[in-house]
Amino acid sequence: MTQIENHPTTGLDEVVHQRARLGVLAMLAEADKVEFGFIQQTLELTAGNLSRHLATLEKADLVRLEKGYDGRRPRTWVRITAEGRAALKQEVAALRELVARLSDL
Amino acid sequence: MTQIENHPTTGLDEVVHQRARLGVLAMLAEADKVEFGFIQQTLELTAGNLSRHLATLEKADLVRLEKGYDGRRPRTWVRITAEGRAALKQEVAALRELVARLSDL
Repeated sequence: MTQIENHPTTGLDEVVHQRARLGVLAMLAEADKVEFGFIQQTLELTAGNLSRHLATLEKADLVRLEKGYDGRRPRTWVRITAEGRAALKQEVAALRELVARLSDL
Repeated sequence: MTQIENHPTTGLDEVVHQRARLGVLAMLAEADKVEFGFIQQTLELTAGNLSRHLATLEKADLVRLEKGYDGRRPRTWVRITAEGRAALKQEVAALRELVARLSDL
């Protein structure tokens, strides 16, 4: 019987790979904490859409939300967790493998 | 007013970026045509799941399906289209930019 080798994409985690969530994690990896509205504008998402993606990431312990105030305005800040950074690192390694494999498209 | 620069992930197309569909396109880019069952096993998908993803790709003109026979067994073969190859190329370019940006994670 022939052994079928799995494709590099089978190693991708849907929680991390999804376009908007990958964008969130990538932004957070480059900063200490990032404000909700700034993420929303940079990733061109609606507030509702970003909220849902953040809830998915928070449930997976990949990000942490902090409520606070900027003067009198309520603000939400988002941080990446150690697990989030590890998950992003794994995603990037898988993408790097895929991109190398598809280098002569 | 501050101009907010879009993140590289905003250039990703969900039709192409989704894990299973990216896997399908990547497999097809490396071959002339690929048999349904082989894609299914390589990407570890159920037949129903793969069918749905192929329908999405076909609707976007990124792949073409061919029904035929292998002896007396009905078979479905899948090919990437020129549009599919162009879309995959664009995805890979966006991923390459993202991976380069996240190189010191």
